[in-house]
Amino acid sequence: MTEITPELVEKAYVALVSLDREEAAKYWSEDVRFSVPGRHAQAGWHVGLDALLAFRRALTDAAGGKFEVELVTSMISGNECMDVVKVHAVRPGAPDGSTSPYDVLDADGIQVFRWENGRIVEGRAGFFGDGSTNYDQWWSPLDGNGERRYV
Amino acid sequence: MTEITPELVEKAYVALVSLDREEAAKYWSEDVRFSVPGRHAQAGWHVGLDALLAFRRALTDAAGGKFEVELVTSMISGNECMDVVKVHAVRPGAPDGSTSPYDVLDADGIQVFRWENGRIVEGRAGFFGDGSTNYDQWWSPLDGNGERRYV
Amino acid sequence: MTEITPELVEKAYVALVSLDREEAAKYWSEDVRFSVPGRHAQAGWHVGLDALLAFRRALTDAAGGKFEVELVTSMISGNECMDVVKVHAVRPGAPDGSTSPYDVLDADGIQVFRWENGRIVEGRAGFFGDGSTNYDQWWSPLDGNGERRYV
Amino acid sequence: MTEITPELVEKAYVALVSLDREEAAKYWSEDVRFSVPGRHAQAGWHVGLDALLAFRRALTDAAGGKFEVELVTSMISGNECMDVVKVHAVRPGAPDGSTSPYDVLDADGIQVFRWENGRIVEGRAGFFGDGSTNYDQWWSPLDGNGERRYV
Repeated sequence: MTEITPELVEKAYVALVSLDREEAAKYWSEDVRFSVPGRHAQAGWHVGLDALLAFRRALTDAAGGKFEVELVTSMISGNECMDVVKVHAVRPGAPDGSTSPYDVLDADGIQVFRWENGRIVEGRAGFFGDGSTNYDQWWSPLDGNGERRYV
Repeated sequence: MTEITPELVEKAYVALVSLDREEAAKYWSEDVRFSVPGRHAQAGWHVGLDALLAFRRALTDAAGGKFEVELVTSMISGNECMDVVKVHAVRPGAPDGSTSPYDVLDADGIQVFRWENGRIVEGRAGFFGDGSTNYDQWWSPLDGNGERRYV
Repeated sequence: MTEITPELVEKAYVALVSLDREEAAKYWSEDVRFSVPGRHAQAGWHVGLDALLAFRRALTDAAGGKFEVELVTSMISGNECMDVVKVHAVRPGAPDGSTSPYDVLDADGIQVFRWENGRIVEGRAGFFGDGSTNYDQWWSPLDGNGERRYV
Repeated sequence: MTEITPELVEKAYVALVSLDREEAAKYWSEDVRFSVPGRHAQAGWHVGLDALLAFRRALTDAAGGKFEVELVTSMISGNECMDVVKVHAVRPGAPDGSTSPYDVLDADGIQVFRWENGRIVEGRAGFFGDGSTNYDQWWSPLDGNGERRYV
């Protein structure tokens, strides 16, 4: 049985964020399920590596290529790992210095992953505080004035 | 100046719901702006008749062709009209008898329209109670179990 | 039958906002029902004049005595009246210039009232756009940092 | 330094749920901070053991004495511990068999705690999926029909 180490977890994240399918498939099961929090257009269970990669691509695009994740704390125990994270991202086209929750995502959350045979088979993310609302608004087509970003 | 009558208002609604652009253009300005409540993928200001028709088509599709609107009360005054309505719609594929707010929209709301030169130039819709949450959930890709309807 | 005029409607509002029970009872039925939008601690149907006055007092307190309502448009028709309004209110203790939706309510909405025998017997309020979320956050005990205003 | 063990964590939870201040003070710091997710009346950072106990009492009351927590998985690492949990609770007075999210809380979430000198000094809870909305609605005064539970 593969031991889950911080280095392995790190490699799995890097591979996913790279959007390189071949790399990602080394660490993520073809049948991986991942639950995105909230009720926006990308929320819910994404099933399969292709769906997970498509979600990650959408996330990267929505953040103008810059979805920042700061690791606050991590745990590994048996076949599971988890992180407390701070996320920060700004919608492209947002006014300079905007603090609108429709433009700027600033939230603390958590992600939990389960491994099997050296690959992640299931993951779930959630937010602390009222971060889920900020995430929904940030994902929405609305800007801070209620106008739609994409018509 | 065209007088706004209940018959004219009715014709405008029927033309829009028909999705017949030529018919709709008789009652809705080419530059019409319409505000859809909430923060789901179709929320916000839709600008122009084509955007409004695209929204209506999305709404009809999301409701499996059956977005029910019951008129509770109506007013016309000067160049404005408004309706209090009860809306009911079920996402196609919902389990029979589902009462999940992700499957079933059951909400009371209001719509207000402003007319100029015989055509509607601006409209806004809103919900009473916590209907805005129900509307967001109904529009979301989630079913009652948190699975995504479309992967 | 009492005719509903703009002057009568205005008097009813002023009487309610004054929180003078005797004055309010001239325009509001003892059995009045009023629906406050959202899902915060003051949301839902308030039943009876005392409950309505208690809600108004809570609203005034939450706004530090200054809940601003700008009338955008009004209609009267038969035994009903309605207004489109812009509301603005800031939680006492909010940092100067705060734009946090937990501190500042800035939303467009509507209120609809039904009269019987010269008094209002039912009313409902709702918001356009994503105003319902702003209203929930503004009513919540949270400040812009997620701290509780009242421990 | 006290080692954090599953038995110690269990004792801390039992002591808190018992609402026995003396017992709770053995495991929870006088200065403990705990973040309740959402934007309902009990949301946000509760600061100090008394505030935490008051929150727990409110939670127990809102659940009619029966707030069920099923432990799905747990981790302990260094001075931190975390649990993935399933929570279930029904508002007293809810109609038999109600599935309304205003009556029934059914959500998966997580809690993370940091220990210092043998006591918990900080904790945060969050939800997966759209559980944060369910939690807000369950805490709200609304029943499934939009009536207020307590007038």
